[in-house]
Amino acid sequence: MNAPASREYVLTVSCPDAVGLVAAVSSLIASWGGWLTEVANHSDTASGRFFMRNVVTADSLPFGVAEFVEGFRPLAMRYQMAFTVRDTSVPKRVVVLVSREGHCLADLLYRWRTGELRCDLRGVVSNHEDLREMVEREGVAFHHVPVAKDGKDEAFAAIERILDAEKVDLAVLARFMQILPEGLCRKYSGRVVNIHHGFLPSFAGGRPYQRAFERGVKLIGATSHFVTADLDEGPIIEQDVVRIDHTHSVEDMIRLGRDVEKTVLARAVRDVLEDRVLLDGIKTVVFR
Amino acid sequence: MNAPASREYVLTVSCPDAVGLVAAVSSLIASWGGWLTEVANHSDTASGRFFMRNVVTADSLPFGVAEFVEGFRPLAMRYQMAFTVRDTSVPKRVVVLVSREGHCLADLLYRWRTGELRCDLRGVVSNHEDLREMVEREGVAFHHVPVAKDGKDEAFAAIERILDAEKVDLAVLARFMQILPEGLCRKYSGRVVNIHHGFLPSFAGGRPYQRAFERGVKLIGATSHFVTADLDEGPIIEQDVVRIDHTHSVEDMIRLGRDVEKTVLARAVRDVLEDRVLLDGIKTVVFR
Amino acid sequence: MNAPASREYVLTVSCPDAVGLVAAVSSLIASWGGWLTEVANHSDTASGRFFMRNVVTADSLPFGVAEFVEGFRPLAMRYQMAFTVRDTSVPKRVVVLVSREGHCLADLLYRWRTGELRCDLRGVVSNHEDLREMVEREGVAFHHVPVAKDGKDEAFAAIERILDAEKVDLAVLARFMQILPEGLCRKYSGRVVNIHHGFLPSFAGGRPYQRAFERGVKLIGATSHFVTADLDEGPIIEQDVVRIDHTHSVEDMIRLGRDVEKTVLARAVRDVLEDRVLLDGIKTVVFR
Amino acid sequence: MNAPASREYVLTVSCPDAVGLVAAVSSLIASWGGWLTEVANHSDTASGRFFMRNVVTADSLPFGVAEFVEGFRPLAMRYQMAFTVRDTSVPKRVVVLVSREGHCLADLLYRWRTGELRCDLRGVVSNHEDLREMVEREGVAFHHVPVAKDGKDEAFAAIERILDAEKVDLAVLARFMQILPEGLCRKYSGRVVNIHHGFLPSFAGGRPYQRAFERGVKLIGATSHFVTADLDEGPIIEQDVVRIDHTHSVEDMIRLGRDVEKTVLARAVRDVLEDRVLLDGIKTVVFR
Repeated sequence: MNAPASREYVLTVSCPDAVGLVAAVSSLIASWGGWLTEVANHSDTASGRFFMRNVVTADSLPFGVAEFVEGFRPLAMRYQMAFTVRDTSVPKRVVVLVSREGHCLADLLYRWRTGELRCDLRGVVSNHEDLREMVEREGVAFHHVPVAKDGKDEAFAAIERILDAEKVDLAVLARFMQILPEGLCRKYSGRVVNIHHGFLPSFAGGRPYQRAFERGVKLIGATSHFVTADLDEGPIIEQDVVRIDHTHSVEDMIRLGRDVEKTVLARAVRDVLEDRVLLDGIKTVVFR
Repeated sequence: MNAPASREYVLTVSCPDAVGLVAAVSSLIASWGGWLTEVANHSDTASGRFFMRNVVTADSLPFGVAEFVEGFRPLAMRYQMAFTVRDTSVPKRVVVLVSREGHCLADLLYRWRTGELRCDLRGVVSNHEDLREMVEREGVAFHHVPVAKDGKDEAFAAIERILDAEKVDLAVLARFMQILPEGLCRKYSGRVVNIHHGFLPSFAGGRPYQRAFERGVKLIGATSHFVTADLDEGPIIEQDVVRIDHTHSVEDMIRLGRDVEKTVLARAVRDVLEDRVLLDGIKTVVFR
Repeated sequence: MNAPASREYVLTVSCPDAVGLVAAVSSLIASWGGWLTEVANHSDTASGRFFMRNVVTADSLPFGVAEFVEGFRPLAMRYQMAFTVRDTSVPKRVVVLVSREGHCLADLLYRWRTGELRCDLRGVVSNHEDLREMVEREGVAFHHVPVAKDGKDEAFAAIERILDAEKVDLAVLARFMQILPEGLCRKYSGRVVNIHHGFLPSFAGGRPYQRAFERGVKLIGATSHFVTADLDEGPIIEQDVVRIDHTHSVEDMIRLGRDVEKTVLARAVRDVLEDRVLLDGIKTVVFR
Repeated sequence: MNAPASREYVLTVSCPDAVGLVAAVSSLIASWGGWLTEVANHSDTASGRFFMRNVVTADSLPFGVAEFVEGFRPLAMRYQMAFTVRDTSVPKRVVVLVSREGHCLADLLYRWRTGELRCDLRGVVSNHEDLREMVEREGVAFHHVPVAKDGKDEAFAAIERILDAEKVDLAVLARFMQILPEGLCRKYSGRVVNIHHGFLPSFAGGRPYQRAFERGVKLIGATSHFVTADLDEGPIIEQDVVRIDHTHSVEDMIRLGRDVEKTVLARAVRDVLEDRVLLDGIKTVVFR
């Protein structure tokens, strides 16, 4: 485990753009004596919306999250701000969903165990038994929820109960080869991150490497995105690619793709855990 | 101009795969006393085809291209080989087609003038006058062929006459914003290279940067491919990408994309000029 | 030429870190009615210094640069801020220095002529005549200043007179194969940008590609940096690399390197022209 | 575990360059009825040496490795060839050496367990106990060999006994923070691969990330190389980089660097296991 990071409050803000927003927010924080260690903001001229992420050292404020929220509310109301305040010493609650491919899960588990990914890993859900050992030997709960063709409703009800019971802040689909039902997508909107093994919008849907092979592309990639009811159409958080050529078989592409998938997913999960990703319609603002 | 390269013969071969092909070809060349400086080959297990590229120093052979072809023909017939033999001291005849965007053309002209791209640049064709000065000051012929909405047939007939008259080995669409008619595509199959300002198969067709912006992708790219009658569906030669984020406007993407476009096109053109690109159905084999 | 950008003031600030700096600056600007379109800041915990870059639309302020500076001075004094205010409608004055290699110059000229690089290009200085035509045909002044082995002092005095006369904000060494004298480096500190054709700190000094070839590295690169009296030791602004392998000769590396050099230099020049690069000791803060 | 690959013989050849080498080798193999599925070769014009790698399907030959070697020897003697023949169904014997950092080891273990890295993992040696559990739970032997300041000779003698006893084809230093003694380097020349957490030749030696941070580079990297008696001077097999900027602390660089280190090392190990890496003086030829 890394040395515990210094405790901080992370404030994220999303609102219609206006003059003086940076000043209004930073002045309020300054009026409390707050020490801003990171400030980032973005004006989307297309949507007319403003986004902000501020990090304040907790020690510099005379109060806690609840008072921060209370104190910030009047300003938020004036500017129609959606906002969140989070105490970095309270890690987010996470559940990972997988099927049989274990490379993303193994990567996430290693980063979590060594403290690189700071979160409260509540468990792993899978529709197969293959990865049970990998999970349980880390002392993490493994839930086997088979998804039968004619039993999808029950299966997803079971999954929803797990997510609810664990009060998850984030569900990570780490090569979970099932499509979430629309209701679940909506209920957990902005809290479910998927890795797609294709460079979206290329090769959405099934068998992306096979199709990339057939098309003869010279780069293959992976895409991490928020899950919405539209398959592979959710807001993209992170993407990356790897070069291939005519010598690579589909199996080679699957192998090379695994490295891209796990890296892209790990970056996206980290960014979400650190409140760096804000939703802007069907797009994301990622403050790095 | 670079120092003239040593004179070489480049042999490319494409045929059904079989045992002993490398031996058969290299032994024949060795029997002539030929010095092989580069050998590359590829077996496509999906299509069952074999591809080969050999470079022989011209000095090591007691004869010229015509005799090389004659001498190779019996072997080629035995194995049903399609093959080409080219003398690198005879540069390929090239015509470039452009519309109004000059970045790819300027890049190609610079590489050609400094000898980096070794070819016989026969002229530039454009449906606009904008780039005339850039071309003529290099001493290159500029052909203005307006493409009126109701005069496309005549315009493309004029373009075809230019390509025919110049006996082009390669026509480069360097941001030529017109769709070639099917007949021309077929007649010049394998001899027309296009740059598409999108990462195919994503964003085929018009306004790729605008659509990439709207989709919120995190990487944008460009694709160089052979032109076929199916728009943006031809065999891909080269692709590359550049990272973007939420701060980039469509204009920024167009600006960043220009650098990718010109680099990708220049690499593809160089590869084609050096006979490194072999067609394998709707895919390419690129021997680098 | 691109459409003229909207007129803006760019404020850069560098000072000892303290609580409330963002609030102090943004509140002052807000008190003037200023519309902040970009805000970026950085606290260097190693040096204890704070850096900030703000972009304000000129229309939103009731005054010009002189009044902005006047109005900002009290705050700057309170926090010991070094600061600059620039009107983006007044392009920076630039002189480019070259020797015989023209690829960086050609690239900069194209970007300047098409409006991608917004600056007032005052002229090109070279110790050779080779690139005169490339410069003059763009309507740009070309100064030939031969640098004889026993006449370096005079040559650099002549160059200094040109830089002084043109009141340059930025001198770009675009493959200028001469070492600037220490006095000139000091006088123009922070205003001279060089491109080194090696991935610093690897291969500082001469013949970097030859040495990279001999060492057998698998990536080669280029580095753009501010020029200081210590050769190749100045603060790095931008770097990039390209993959090579055993098949690449020194000549191939020089060819591939050209593309990296020109891209890296163009990015660095653009960043400096837009006041995105702030000096932090022997390092840079680059707000992108 | 992946499906077992088809059995193949891999022939590598290194010799003085000469006319007809490709023909001589491929004809000999063809005369045996051998089916060449991969052929790659390289002439190093600087050293005057020729390198070749051939893959022959085992089924296509009427004999085994011993007969292959016997049959090849006359040709090898004629051309002064150093050569190896390996049966891909006999995996190489590998020992991994580590200290306390486990990211490279965890990555290698995962790739080995899932069959991506085909080798006979004989054990892991460490001068610390930290990673014992990670190793033993995979059923792999863990050897703790403490390296005391005044007991280095004994420690390395113990390590040498392990390598000897396991008849290792390859020892992988996966963040082993000890310098191997010269004798061991010489004895296992060409069979020990290291990962250096710096972009060599930049930042050879200790604390590369700290020094990269202090220098203000914009990319950091990792280098995998064969180990020789000259620290960090051995032939480079693979390198890669990751972009950083002023916002990254040394800790961030260490974190980002881990991903580059493990990827670069895994690629190099795979290439060595597949006999793709040939030594060319202080450089390597890597046939991919």
